[in-house]
Amino acid sequence: MRIFTAADIAAQDKRFRTTFINSLSGFKSVQLLGSISPDGKPNLAIFNSIFHVGAHPPLLGHIIRPKGPEHDTLENILKTGYYTLNNIQENYYKQAHQTSARYLSGESEFEACGFEAEMIGNFPVPFVKEASIKIGLKLREALPLTVNDTKVIIGEIELIQLDESLIGEDGYVDLEKAGSITCAGLDSYHRTQKIGRLAYAKPGQEPREL
Amino acid sequence: MRIFTAADIAAQDKRFRTTFINSLSGFKSVQLLGSISPDGKPNLAIFNSIFHVGAHPPLLGHIIRPKGPEHDTLENILKTGYYTLNNIQENYYKQAHQTSARYLSGESEFEACGFEAEMIGNFPVPFVKEASIKIGLKLREALPLTVNDTKVIIGEIELIQLDESLIGEDGYVDLEKAGSITCAGLDSYHRTQKIGRLAYAKPGQEPREL
Repeated sequence: MRIFTAADIAAQDKRFRTTFINSLSGFKSVQLLGSISPDGKPNLAIFNSIFHVGAHPPLLGHIIRPKGPEHDTLENILKTGYYTLNNIQENYYKQAHQTSARYLSGESEFEACGFEAEMIGNFPVPFVKEASIKIGLKLREALPLTVNDTKVIIGEIELIQLDESLIGEDGYVDLEKAGSITCAGLDSYHRTQKIGRLAYAKPGQEPREL
Repeated sequence: MRIFTAADIAAQDKRFRTTFINSLSGFKSVQLLGSISPDGKPNLAIFNSIFHVGAHPPLLGHIIRPKGPEHDTLENILKTGYYTLNNIQENYYKQAHQTSARYLSGESEFEACGFEAEMIGNFPVPFVKEASIKIGLKLREALPLTVNDTKVIIGEIELIQLDESLIGEDGYVDLEKAGSITCAGLDSYHRTQKIGRLAYAKPGQEPREL
């Protein structure tokens, strides 16, 4: 077994450390984030730091770096107050990864990467037509972290579109049936296979499959 | 295709909505979080909201609810300033889920759920001996969210233990080789199967497998 101390990690080559630390913490929630500039230019970018914040009200969060290729996405979210999250399926995972390329500011990754932008109802930001789970969010908080130059973005879910057959009687959305994939690190994509779903855990009671 | 508006979601039964919203945003990073009280009582709890914050310095985040069963974990992290994250493998996923039961305050989930606590070097908090990827963190930020009663916890990685054979030449940690699993919603566990790893994306260049 190898042990890395803080000093060992700090001494790593920068690219090595980026890959190492990014892949360390487990498989991630990966989504295509759609946004739009105030003058109507759509933007699409892959994010792998999506996390659940709460269900009452329904809130999701993600991390964003103000500098670098995510700059347009952040500006659009802050200026318009809205964005969309769209799940990634195996048949378009390469196109989804391609949205991480540094396209020119204002160039639409929908078009450049071969996705169709879809407007739903009055929601002001396009969704990815190809996605099987589409979530429209309204910005609620943009918290700057002091430890590094990133922001925590919290959005409230205002619209969801999915096939009703994906939703179980108890509300559970079957991500495998939806074709959603997961990612590891910055660039590795994985399909999943269910092991089991477990009942609500209680002390002194054996774990039980649902 | 079914569309849910904010009003539709708000009208859902509370338990249905909890399950629905928790499973919507994709497969999650799931880890066993180890902590210890100032008087030396170890605590272990499953968390599925782990996210990558940065590699320089190496930072991970997660969401925690001050009220309810995560209360002990939060108190321990705030009082001692340290915690551990330990990956979950298929052969102990039921025990890992069992740590979510509401054990009495001060009762060790290590013991109650059948895990061995392992101290590494001078790190002040126990790791899960059974885990193949162990991460020791120092608390850096505990940000309260105004939108609901949760906190964003940011920790800096101070120690990592894993088998060197899991680390690629470029720093990539092979989570499948490590046996790490992922979860969906609150209670569904999944193994993964690699689709492909893609090269750094560049505009005007076709996505390429590594």
